[in-house]
Amino acid sequence: MIQAAIVGATGYTGVELLRLLVAHPQVEVVAVSSDTQAGQSVSAVHPHLRPSVDLDYITHEALYEQACSVVFFATPNGTAMHHVPALLERGSKVIDLAADFRLRDAAVWEQYYGMPRACPEWLEQAVYGLPELNRDAIREAQLVANPGCYPTATILGLLPLLEAGAVDVERLIVDAKSGISGAGRSASTPLLMSEAAENFRAYGVHQHRHAPEISQVLAQIAGQGVSLTFTPHVAPMIRGILATMYAWITISAEEAQELYQQHYENEAFVDLMPAGSLPETKSTRGSNFCRISIHVGADSKVPAVILSTIDNLVKGAAGQAVQNMNLMFGLSETEALSQAALPA
Amino acid sequence: MIQAAIVGATGYTGVELLRLLVAHPQVEVVAVSSDTQAGQSVSAVHPHLRPSVDLDYITHEALYEQACSVVFFATPNGTAMHHVPALLERGSKVIDLAADFRLRDAAVWEQYYGMPRACPEWLEQAVYGLPELNRDAIREAQLVANPGCYPTATILGLLPLLEAGAVDVERLIVDAKSGISGAGRSASTPLLMSEAAENFRAYGVHQHRHAPEISQVLAQIAGQGVSLTFTPHVAPMIRGILATMYAWITISAEEAQELYQQHYENEAFVDLMPAGSLPETKSTRGSNFCRISIHVGADSKVPAVILSTIDNLVKGAAGQAVQNMNLMFGLSETEALSQAALPA
Amino acid sequence: MIQAAIVGATGYTGVELLRLLVAHPQVEVVAVSSDTQAGQSVSAVHPHLRPSVDLDYITHEALYEQACSVVFFATPNGTAMHHVPALLERGSKVIDLAADFRLRDAAVWEQYYGMPRACPEWLEQAVYGLPELNRDAIREAQLVANPGCYPTATILGLLPLLEAGAVDVERLIVDAKSGISGAGRSASTPLLMSEAAENFRAYGVHQHRHAPEISQVLAQIAGQGVSLTFTPHVAPMIRGILATMYAWITISAEEAQELYQQHYENEAFVDLMPAGSLPETKSTRGSNFCRISIHVGADSKVPAVILSTIDNLVKGAAGQAVQNMNLMFGLSETEALSQAALPA
Amino acid sequence: MIQAAIVGATGYTGVELLRLLVAHPQVEVVAVSSDTQAGQSVSAVHPHLRPSVDLDYITHEALYEQACSVVFFATPNGTAMHHVPALLERGSKVIDLAADFRLRDAAVWEQYYGMPRACPEWLEQAVYGLPELNRDAIREAQLVANPGCYPTATILGLLPLLEAGAVDVERLIVDAKSGISGAGRSASTPLLMSEAAENFRAYGVHQHRHAPEISQVLAQIAGQGVSLTFTPHVAPMIRGILATMYAWITISAEEAQELYQQHYENEAFVDLMPAGSLPETKSTRGSNFCRISIHVGADSKVPAVILSTIDNLVKGAAGQAVQNMNLMFGLSETEALSQAALPA
Repeated sequence: MIQAAIVGATGYTGVELLRLLVAHPQVEVVAVSSDTQAGQSVSAVHPHLRPSVDLDYITHEALYEQACSVVFFATPNGTAMHHVPALLERGSKVIDLAADFRLRDAAVWEQYYGMPRACPEWLEQAVYGLPELNRDAIREAQLVANPGCYPTATILGLLPLLEAGAVDVERLIVDAKSGISGAGRSASTPLLMSEAAENFRAYGVHQHRHAPEISQVLAQIAGQGVSLTFTPHVAPMIRGILATMYAWITISAEEAQELYQQHYENEAFVDLMPAGSLPETKSTRGSNFCRISIHVGADSKVPAVILSTIDNLVKGAAGQAVQNMNLMFGLSETEALSQAALPA
Repeated sequence: MIQAAIVGATGYTGVELLRLLVAHPQVEVVAVSSDTQAGQSVSAVHPHLRPSVDLDYITHEALYEQACSVVFFATPNGTAMHHVPALLERGSKVIDLAADFRLRDAAVWEQYYGMPRACPEWLEQAVYGLPELNRDAIREAQLVANPGCYPTATILGLLPLLEAGAVDVERLIVDAKSGISGAGRSASTPLLMSEAAENFRAYGVHQHRHAPEISQVLAQIAGQGVSLTFTPHVAPMIRGILATMYAWITISAEEAQELYQQHYENEAFVDLMPAGSLPETKSTRGSNFCRISIHVGADSKVPAVILSTIDNLVKGAAGQAVQNMNLMFGLSETEALSQAALPA
Repeated sequence: MIQAAIVGATGYTGVELLRLLVAHPQVEVVAVSSDTQAGQSVSAVHPHLRPSVDLDYITHEALYEQACSVVFFATPNGTAMHHVPALLERGSKVIDLAADFRLRDAAVWEQYYGMPRACPEWLEQAVYGLPELNRDAIREAQLVANPGCYPTATILGLLPLLEAGAVDVERLIVDAKSGISGAGRSASTPLLMSEAAENFRAYGVHQHRHAPEISQVLAQIAGQGVSLTFTPHVAPMIRGILATMYAWITISAEEAQELYQQHYENEAFVDLMPAGSLPETKSTRGSNFCRISIHVGADSKVPAVILSTIDNLVKGAAGQAVQNMNLMFGLSETEALSQAALPA
Repeated sequence: MIQAAIVGATGYTGVELLRLLVAHPQVEVVAVSSDTQAGQSVSAVHPHLRPSVDLDYITHEALYEQACSVVFFATPNGTAMHHVPALLERGSKVIDLAADFRLRDAAVWEQYYGMPRACPEWLEQAVYGLPELNRDAIREAQLVANPGCYPTATILGLLPLLEAGAVDVERLIVDAKSGISGAGRSASTPLLMSEAAENFRAYGVHQHRHAPEISQVLAQIAGQGVSLTFTPHVAPMIRGILATMYAWITISAEEAQELYQQHYENEAFVDLMPAGSLPETKSTRGSNFCRISIHVGADSKVPAVILSTIDNLVKGAAGQAVQNMNLMFGLSETEALSQAALPA
């Protein structure tokens, strides 16, 4: 039995992780922490977990004292890096759902996250937890940096093209749309329903934190630098990401479909849609699936359009973290993750 | 292994049932039918079930030919009653998620459903499938009439008071609010998102079909006629029912809380909330739970307010059908139904 | 030209008032205040008012110094009462959109609003600003207490029955549903879209602040005490209130329809729907209309159901304030208020 | 007084037009038609227009008999072209809100709309009704082709760059998002709230009908052919379009801001946002404004991002039609169109 603990289990990511872990037959959740809710029962704060979860929140500090096989961080950026070294040295595995170990370049980290890099010595050993890219390394990892939600949808959508060298990496465009749960559970005016419902808006144009993360991974796959334009938007819904990607490619529609089909045919959680069909966010809601389609125009001058959709809280966060944990502990990769989406 | 078939597996109820059954370890879904989609694969019509479900829709008639342990009807009202006798005679068990076997009185049926009563001889043997009320009878039943969504929320909310004789049955008021999936998946203008979003409306005032169903069951519990006012509303959301009930009661707040607590303490799917807390529909989304609270005012002249919430497609339809199936086949009642809600 | 000022013009009520006043041909908005946004331009904070509004926010204190014909308070409860006396003494008229002057009984005020009553000497002179009830007094008033949103919908829905003495006032039930803008624009977790969308919940059961306000006015109309149960709910939408009211009445369906028809036939903003039709919240969105229907059951033992719908920010707040201002300044009551709703 | 008639006044566009025209001081609506609702009163079908509108629907044929100054077509594509010649010959002006007179090339029309071109002789005389582009021609026109909603947002967003020759026209990308009212009011399953809420999806990839319309106009502005990729999406909201455009430009951020500022400074309905600010769809809801921002990245290899937002039913349809009518009849262009948006 894996003893698991979640640091920061009141936000949407942490609570979703808790939902998945309590249904996992080989996991026992031994501790959940929240500095604001310490002392409260989980079921008082999150009644939808009644009666499955019979745990009280403890403080982060108390959690760090607890022995366990794996510690998940579902904390704000900049928290995990201060506590991970001690946990790793004690022998726990760590999966960080925040950004602390995603960016290789400390200077880029400091530019985008506005804080100095802690424990740079552990950066090298952190594995970027996208199983479809780094499965073997994840199996051996003690520390996994769980990818961001936009990067997950984007990288899975472009991976076959980049590996095949079949795309112009100098002019990649990613126009991404997310449900508002991606912005977290902190009270802030723009996240109010009266502001966000019946509204659609772009944000972080030319400056979103996920852009360097995506670029870093795409460049690594391509074996060369890439030029990426990434524009995130908030759609008036709770869950779901759709990334619409524009890429000038060098292969035909049939070749592209075949390339993707072959690339993903053994992946449990990546579902290449039949040619001509269009994935919708609701088809992944609550599930760990990523659904992808590729659309190559008749005119060779126009870019191919690749659509990739995930549930930002599952494949984009908590589900992927469980998938990583399954790999790290030698379990079946799909354990506790095979439920279908809940669409209507 | 239970061989299950679903007649009408394209609407919200049928698809939800399919979602639950494919995850049930003791069930094999052997056939799904749809007269409009026959010949299509389920995954083409409902991509969220990719790749879990590898079935093609067949016609209803083809399905009736197929041998199976249990047949679920998720069809429009008035369909099941024409086919159930043959299936029962062949030895299949039947669970009807429509209204065909809910009302005992054929005249009331004809008044509210506008069509003549078929197979009245089977009415007597149909068990009203509310496990919290009729568990033993369901275990022995060959034919179960799965309750309506509003009746499920309402009856569970009033059951302890009625059994205890602690309520004035002459002036019961149920003000119920439902997500729009309760209206089904047929294309109709009032169900369009442009009509229904950012809108709230009542319908069926003094004449909804669920009123006689609720009255029938409440009267049976009370052992006397009841006078019920039932007003349904459509809320701008997909899933969920909240029934707000007004009842003049003869016991104190503490007694009422204790009464409900005791009544439901062994029920897996009825969750009495702590005194003073308020159940929200999202706390049940995608789950088979019914959450209830009772609020007794300081002034004895005012009625108690009872709140009861369910997911209309799960405890109000497909989940309850699986719960009934579990009972009918001697399985654990909670099998394949214990997942927590998916709230955010 | 009426010189108008708005104290607290950043919340939903204040901004809506600003939207209405800038389109009013006889009003010049001379000052808007916000203690948090002072120094900012209105159009930076509320871009939907670009380019109509060319004003900067000033502090409340600066606004109080400004000479003007009418001051609107769209502030939190407990603010206006400290500043109104000075403004009145200076000769300005005042319309308070908060609760400070609504409740006659200072003890009830203190119980429900948790703060001591200031300037009780002005309470007597404050007129409750429901034009359909107090038109003549409003015309003469210097200080108007603009009604709450729930009270507006409820009182208009019950007024004809109470005046006619055709209802049992001992068991009135109001089950009200509101869009979330009624909860204001302060950042708080339960108002986040991720919490409130796809969710329906009751709140303030047996203890909402609008209950004593409604009871006070109903009792005044009835000439006797009333027993009221008021249950508010939050629906997952931004604007709109639907109040579903249950009342045991002593007249027939035809008499009731006729009573309401006659009562409201000269009211510009109260629209009695034809018998059998059901008002929807979207039919009033952005408009100052209140739409009402009354449904009397065939069974005399069951209560009549009265439905009343308004836009909580317009007829329930800012629009009614403008209607009151029109009366107070001898203008046409409908000036700047006759636009139709914006439904789809 | 302008006598106006609307052919097809039951869909969202026609009803919105009716809402605007009944508030127009120089217009009298003399007839509205609907082949499905003929004989019904407008207020029975659209209660939000009670009591402003006192008209009954007549048939299209009856409407064509009626003398009037201007006839608006808010009908399905392919309707107007069969009736316009007779109306024009009789001396009425015509504004077609459908696509019949938008495309110059009959072959492209037939390819995208799947029906033969009627009255090709009138195509030459139809003026494309985008006032910011064709104001003078509209003033003289007898027949105006009101632009599509996506084309309006897109063309206004790219117009200054194209006129200035400051953009690479060989790789224009438009990623557009629309509320679901753009799909009209016909009952169809994908438009149901249960399907469309909490969902986000692309459609018409590489083949949407608005792509040739946009290309035609952009090419005309640029004086050369353009290569355009246009991807529309449906966002889970009723109204609003946000077009996110990617364009490789040859000028700096400051030059671009200045270019747009100058281009639009005298336009009443195009609002260039201050540098760095991001327009949201809700800031235009119910209004005739188009809000635009341009974002030029630090890296000259990446494209500029232009954001353009409108209310698809107002500036994207009915409001623009009124703006065109104002021009055609020599009225102030902003008459009856200056109301601010209704955001919360």
